[in-house]
Amino acid sequence: MLKQNHFMKLAIDEAKKSLIKNEVPVGAIIVDKNKNIISKAHNRVEEKKNPLFHAEKIAIDKALSKTRKKFLDNCDIWVTLKPCQMCLGIIKLVRIKRLYYGANDPNETFIQNNNNLYNKVCSEIYGGIEEDECSKLLSIFFKKIRSGL
Amino acid sequence: MLKQNHFMKLAIDEAKKSLIKNEVPVGAIIVDKNKNIISKAHNRVEEKKNPLFHAEKIAIDKALSKTRKKFLDNCDIWVTLKPCQMCLGIIKLVRIKRLYYGANDPNETFIQNNNNLYNKVCSEIYGGIEEDECSKLLSIFFKKIRSGL
Repeated sequence: MLKQNHFMKLAIDEAKKSLIKNEVPVGAIIVDKNKNIISKAHNRVEEKKNPLFHAEKIAIDKALSKTRKKFLDNCDIWVTLKPCQMCLGIIKLVRIKRLYYGANDPNETFIQNNNNLYNKVCSEIYGGIEEDECSKLLSIFFKKIRSGL
Repeated sequence: MLKQNHFMKLAIDEAKKSLIKNEVPVGAIIVDKNKNIISKAHNRVEEKKNPLFHAEKIAIDKALSKTRKKFLDNCDIWVTLKPCQMCLGIIKLVRIKRLYYGANDPNETFIQNNNNLYNKVCSEIYGGIEEDECSKLLSIFFKKIRSGL
């Protein structure tokens, strides 16, 4: 797992791009079975003024365009925050093999109370990877928001 | 309700466009609070070779572009088939007010077994509208697929 955490570090680098733009800091990386990086993305909801521009969604859209395949069944996704309902649905529809996520979302009580949402989304799910660093970025963002900076 | 079912009839007209193209027949209509139609769409998964091109998603993307608003909180969505997990997440994120759907999805056992997915998606949800006609289109499609036509 140690070597693979490299991908979460790259997802964290993506999340930092969101933070600089005053977006909720979330990053995502899609990797194929040979461990090649297929796409990278960060949350751009405010920039695009569109609540659907989550990091996972953008990374998956890019990967579909790049591979010209209908499904990403040989790919894994690394994301710094536990995916929302839409992103879980997308991960399922494009048949991503493994989901690796960092922080839990303290604001997403719906998902927390419905953990069965994760059933059958993909074949393997691993949470809490580099959780401290992923959560720290979120804390920095929300502190900034609360202080009005 | 009688007059409003007009919108489901229009969603059915959209679904028929999918059927002609050998796509799973699903249509969606977005209507604002003054009952103006904001967008229409039909399922284009095969045409786009992209499993995310569901009728609801396309209709919502179009409505966001057209209104240039971040949220569709004054809008309702009419869709001929009970939305999947991704589409439910999208409906929630864009804050659509009311969801009206036609047929239940006999293939979507995950959603059927997790009806709590519908909790808090939007303020009002009405199912089974023009269900017979919506289901009939789906039956025609799946019979065609099974017979190899």
